[in-house]
Amino acid sequence: MPQQVRIALDAMGGDHGPSVVVPGAELALAQHPDSTFILFGDRTKIEPLLASRPRLKEVCRLVHTDVAVRMDEKPSQALRSGRWKSSMWLAIDAVKKGEADVAVSAGNTGALMAMAKFNLRMLPGIERPAIAALWPTLKGSSIVLDLGASIGADAENLVDMAVMGSAMARVLFDLDRPSVGLLNIGAEEVKGLEPVREAGRILREDPPPHIDYIGFVEGDDIGKGKADVVVTEGFAGNIALKTAEGTARQFADYLKSAISQSLWSKIGYVLARPAFRMLREKMDPRRSNGGVFLGLNGVVIKSHGGTDPEGFAAAVDMGYNMVRHELLAKIGDTIRKHAGDTEAARVVSGAAS
Amino acid sequence: MPQQVRIALDAMGGDHGPSVVVPGAELALAQHPDSTFILFGDRTKIEPLLASRPRLKEVCRLVHTDVAVRMDEKPSQALRSGRWKSSMWLAIDAVKKGEADVAVSAGNTGALMAMAKFNLRMLPGIERPAIAALWPTLKGSSIVLDLGASIGADAENLVDMAVMGSAMARVLFDLDRPSVGLLNIGAEEVKGLEPVREAGRILREDPPPHIDYIGFVEGDDIGKGKADVVVTEGFAGNIALKTAEGTARQFADYLKSAISQSLWSKIGYVLARPAFRMLREKMDPRRSNGGVFLGLNGVVIKSHGGTDPEGFAAAVDMGYNMVRHELLAKIGDTIRKHAGDTEAARVVSGAAS
Repeated sequence: MPQQVRIALDAMGGDHGPSVVVPGAELALAQHPDSTFILFGDRTKIEPLLASRPRLKEVCRLVHTDVAVRMDEKPSQALRSGRWKSSMWLAIDAVKKGEADVAVSAGNTGALMAMAKFNLRMLPGIERPAIAALWPTLKGSSIVLDLGASIGADAENLVDMAVMGSAMARVLFDLDRPSVGLLNIGAEEVKGLEPVREAGRILREDPPPHIDYIGFVEGDDIGKGKADVVVTEGFAGNIALKTAEGTARQFADYLKSAISQSLWSKIGYVLARPAFRMLREKMDPRRSNGGVFLGLNGVVIKSHGGTDPEGFAAAVDMGYNMVRHELLAKIGDTIRKHAGDTEAARVVSGAAS
Repeated sequence: MPQQVRIALDAMGGDHGPSVVVPGAELALAQHPDSTFILFGDRTKIEPLLASRPRLKEVCRLVHTDVAVRMDEKPSQALRSGRWKSSMWLAIDAVKKGEADVAVSAGNTGALMAMAKFNLRMLPGIERPAIAALWPTLKGSSIVLDLGASIGADAENLVDMAVMGSAMARVLFDLDRPSVGLLNIGAEEVKGLEPVREAGRILREDPPPHIDYIGFVEGDDIGKGKADVVVTEGFAGNIALKTAEGTARQFADYLKSAISQSLWSKIGYVLARPAFRMLREKMDPRRSNGGVFLGLNGVVIKSHGGTDPEGFAAAVDMGYNMVRHELLAKIGDTIRKHAGDTEAARVVSGAAS
């Protein structure tokens, strides 16, 4: 376990750049005093923010660059214009070079994924990356992946995601065998579900270690917290996430307009304010900010672009935990063991036949 | 336009069978006195329920059958055991034979779809069926399809859905050119989105009549009511629907437990009760009950299996509207016009070249 967790920050990423990243880092440091930071970005914007934060400044190294990836740049454009020199690239590159343990960026998701893949490469045995995040549930939180890194997974990709998601759950939830469900639809005999069904068969018959496979789950099971880890292909996963966010916002909107209906309901609201505060905290998207890029030779965290310092600190916290509890080692371990087991099983059944 | 709307009901469908279907039909009749009903199912269970409802009984014909499709039967099983004789089959068959204008069932979705496809066949020019339903939004309601009839749509399937969904929106929302969006994820350059992108190109460059194509929408745009009609492939559509339902339930749960936190918040709740009633009505899934099977040579409506009489009446109301405002004619008309236009364009461009 490393003495300190060394965190590389893309200080220019997100809608607000350094004005969110720097105070976010300060909050994260207060939470984890054994962190150090490397900030990549425009010195003239970052230095004044550090000047007023001596504690942060002390554990911070600033690396200047003029180049920042724009939020609307396409991944291929970002790679062309920002490779070797943008704050985003340099943060990832610090992980590649072993100067940092994790990179965090609130920048453009597509560009970050493209650069992370290009620079860090995939873990041996993993074909494609996935994005995983915490999903608030009635029981606490679950991990859902893939939220849009790749589209149209085959059975092996889904099994890989189960492996990576359960490693992440072991890190975050302190479980030895997290429960894993495959997201599916109710219809039993619809064509096109073969990859999901085949992945289910593999997870049932030849389960990787540290996985408690519980079968298929449906969209409404996510919020119930039916599985610690919910695995799905990236298109459906992204749609599910955004739809849930939209529904939560819709509900909050209805509630607000219902309450402002009459004087009595306003008074009722005032009396019930602590209850509403609790509700707001439960629904607070900042609490679960931080998408983890899985499958890469390094830990990269994506923060929401529009978040505030508290939300950014939550993303840094996510990265800290991934490093402190050795996410990559846990993933690698599970893959190797599973490959080994499968190989051994093959040898045994070959000898028996 | 038909004088009366003749509605065939699978009286045995759903978790509660006739005890929900018969009172549901009574409510629907009160709303639309120009309806008549054919009830298919177990006479011994239905007759007592009709005896106490003389107005309904007067416009009702009861056709006895012993056979009912179970909620857990696979579509292929249901077809084997329930064809020709189950209450579900007979309700669909009444539409096929022209004895009814629409069939409504709260039974097993997969079986209902399989029987409807098998018996009614597809509309000419439509390759695959879709399930469409109303989705409550901040602006009112939108139509979302496909909610799980088919998996993995190609570009032509998506365009067909845009045609059918906009015909349904013309029926329900009284619009001449409903706005149509294609559900997509933000990522610009992810592989696997070709069908969605290609469908977008067709809808932009060669739009069918009565469609105002507004481009891609994301999961959180559905609840905002950004498009009157949201088109997606069935796997993602089903996941989105169930996830939204789960999130709404989660929010309601949080709210309930927040309110029961303290005496003050309970008093606050009592004062704000009309506001909460309004909220509950907005979120009431019964209001938007009723999935419309599109693409078939006939109108079939699927009610939620666990609904109550009010919810079932909403599904019947949906069917009534589809018939009264001539959904099938509107779909056929749009398809023919579009095919004609495209053909004409081909001839013209052929002549020019």
